[in-house]
Amino acid sequence: MTGWMMTGAWWKAPPKAIDQGMREAAFARQGQLTKPPGSLGRLETAAVDLAGMQGCVTPGIERPWIVIFAADHGVVAAGVSAFPQSVTGEMIRNFSRGGAAICVLARESGAQLEVVDVGSVESPGELPGVRDARIAAGTADLSQTAAMTAEQCQQALAQGRAAAARALDAGADLFIGGEMGIGNTTAAAALICAYTGLAPALVCGPGTGLDAAGVSRKAAVVAQALKRQGAATGPAVLTLAQLGGFEIAALCGAYIACAQAGLPVVVDGFIASAAALAAERMAPGTRAWMLFGHASAEPGHAAALSALQAQPLLDLGLRLGEGSGAAAALPLLRLACALHRDMATFAEAGVSQG
Amino acid sequence: MTGWMMTGAWWKAPPKAIDQGMREAAFARQGQLTKPPGSLGRLETAAVDLAGMQGCVTPGIERPWIVIFAADHGVVAAGVSAFPQSVTGEMIRNFSRGGAAICVLARESGAQLEVVDVGSVESPGELPGVRDARIAAGTADLSQTAAMTAEQCQQALAQGRAAAARALDAGADLFIGGEMGIGNTTAAAALICAYTGLAPALVCGPGTGLDAAGVSRKAAVVAQALKRQGAATGPAVLTLAQLGGFEIAALCGAYIACAQAGLPVVVDGFIASAAALAAERMAPGTRAWMLFGHASAEPGHAAALSALQAQPLLDLGLRLGEGSGAAAALPLLRLACALHRDMATFAEAGVSQG
Repeated sequence: MTGWMMTGAWWKAPPKAIDQGMREAAFARQGQLTKPPGSLGRLETAAVDLAGMQGCVTPGIERPWIVIFAADHGVVAAGVSAFPQSVTGEMIRNFSRGGAAICVLARESGAQLEVVDVGSVESPGELPGVRDARIAAGTADLSQTAAMTAEQCQQALAQGRAAAARALDAGADLFIGGEMGIGNTTAAAALICAYTGLAPALVCGPGTGLDAAGVSRKAAVVAQALKRQGAATGPAVLTLAQLGGFEIAALCGAYIACAQAGLPVVVDGFIASAAALAAERMAPGTRAWMLFGHASAEPGHAAALSALQAQPLLDLGLRLGEGSGAAAALPLLRLACALHRDMATFAEAGVSQG
Repeated sequence: MTGWMMTGAWWKAPPKAIDQGMREAAFARQGQLTKPPGSLGRLETAAVDLAGMQGCVTPGIERPWIVIFAADHGVVAAGVSAFPQSVTGEMIRNFSRGGAAICVLARESGAQLEVVDVGSVESPGELPGVRDARIAAGTADLSQTAAMTAEQCQQALAQGRAAAARALDAGADLFIGGEMGIGNTTAAAALICAYTGLAPALVCGPGTGLDAAGVSRKAAVVAQALKRQGAATGPAVLTLAQLGGFEIAALCGAYIACAQAGLPVVVDGFIASAAALAAERMAPGTRAWMLFGHASAEPGHAAALSALQAQPLLDLGLRLGEGSGAAAALPLLRLACALHRDMATFAEAGVSQG
């Protein structure tokens, strides 16, 4: 445990409080806009939630910030992925060149995009837009041993914290974390099982494209990891080190740091939600700073969302990661803010109320 | 039936054929982009559908066009709405001044917005951005008599056709139709019941905010209208005249004209889907030119969507109308097109395939 002691468990500092007064003022404003009460559904609640987070009755998203954490996973040796491990590094190059889905989504939304390599197997070398912050050449195989040492896990958490700090320094008003890492649906499934007590068969899915036999193998690998670790009993941060991955721990650290600083987060899909669950277990109250972008096609996502009492904005059958489902929700959050800010009230428009 | 004979049943001309070759080329392109196959879910299918409609392997939405048709309903006398009938005219003024939800959504999306008054009870007078095309001072009470004469219904269909022609003349590449009309969820429910054979209790809902007793009263009114009319047996256009409304018939005419000209349509919620169902029954094949923006909170919407074999992009609990749910889906369609056009292929990026 010396690792945690070195710099202290910074994640235990409490999250910033939501501005409940502003939340209530925003809710009252919604009731005055020229529409039947509640008729804008989730677009109303999103604007009200953002008002409480931003401490502003008419919130807005001007400077969204996207960070992709990439890393490799030792558990790939157990045959849990439809793609070869080399794809992690290849996709880091694709992020750098602007050809990946999240690059397109960031450009279309005017979001800043940063890539942080927290542990690919082979360094892709110096690349524009990519920070080399490799903690190790991938994690250890979580079915055989702890994925990370305590020190490595803390380093990954600190990388997330540092990414959130860069976003804040740049004046970001919304944070999206994405991930890339062949094998990381296995780590995410193991974490969700450990934090919720659900059986691996209920949480494991095809990931990038396993067939039914592959999904069964993945569930057996996760069961083995949980048995090895006796996961449900230790502190949440030890569970993260045992079963997670560098990019998952970095996401977790970023979410906690955002909540501490009061920067709203849009959580992406299956892997990001596993990180969000780790964050809430390590730092209760972090959840209050999270919006949820989309319901993933990965079947175990529902379990993580349920544990977080989260209802995502989109349900488009996405299962890509990279932050893509959160970035796809960004235009809807902006429309929610615009409607909330710009619609006329009944009094302004001279329209009768029901 | 002299009404139909005057100018001929223009809606019987067949819809333009979808470009299946371009659809297949777009589908093949999706399989080459740097992501697991199918992992962008509905964003992939939306791009492929638009490719077939626009006859272009990389479709785009540069000039979206939104038309709101507004009209009043005689059936309001039966106590089927939570809002007074005066709201239709008041909202036409609100559209003109830019204060309604659809005005905000149109501005945010850079869409052209046009309002056509096809039959408000009291003319709101000359207003910027509003076309006065009033067919009558509201429809007749559909629970007592035909809502429209055959001639009136044809006039409303022609107004929709003319709106589609204006969109085409302006170079629009996507058409969204919206509606405003106190009482129009009752007319839409009656049409959906007539076209699908479902019972009124399964299709009628709270609309702008009826309580349970109000919903029961609405269902009884619809049952009375169906009994009076013996709706299910006549031609689809007569059902529309009997049970519809001016704005619903105008939407229907616009959808048919768009399909004939090959202009893709995004269908809004409950009332727009009733118009879409009428369009498909009057002009089979029109459905092929429709995308669906959102699943409405109005419970009967699912029945209309099912009859149209439609799965909408969004499910945000919206129940406002005005085209708002279709306009909210516009940014997602644009992201779908951008991803489809701008992502790197496996070959371009040097990424291994699974």
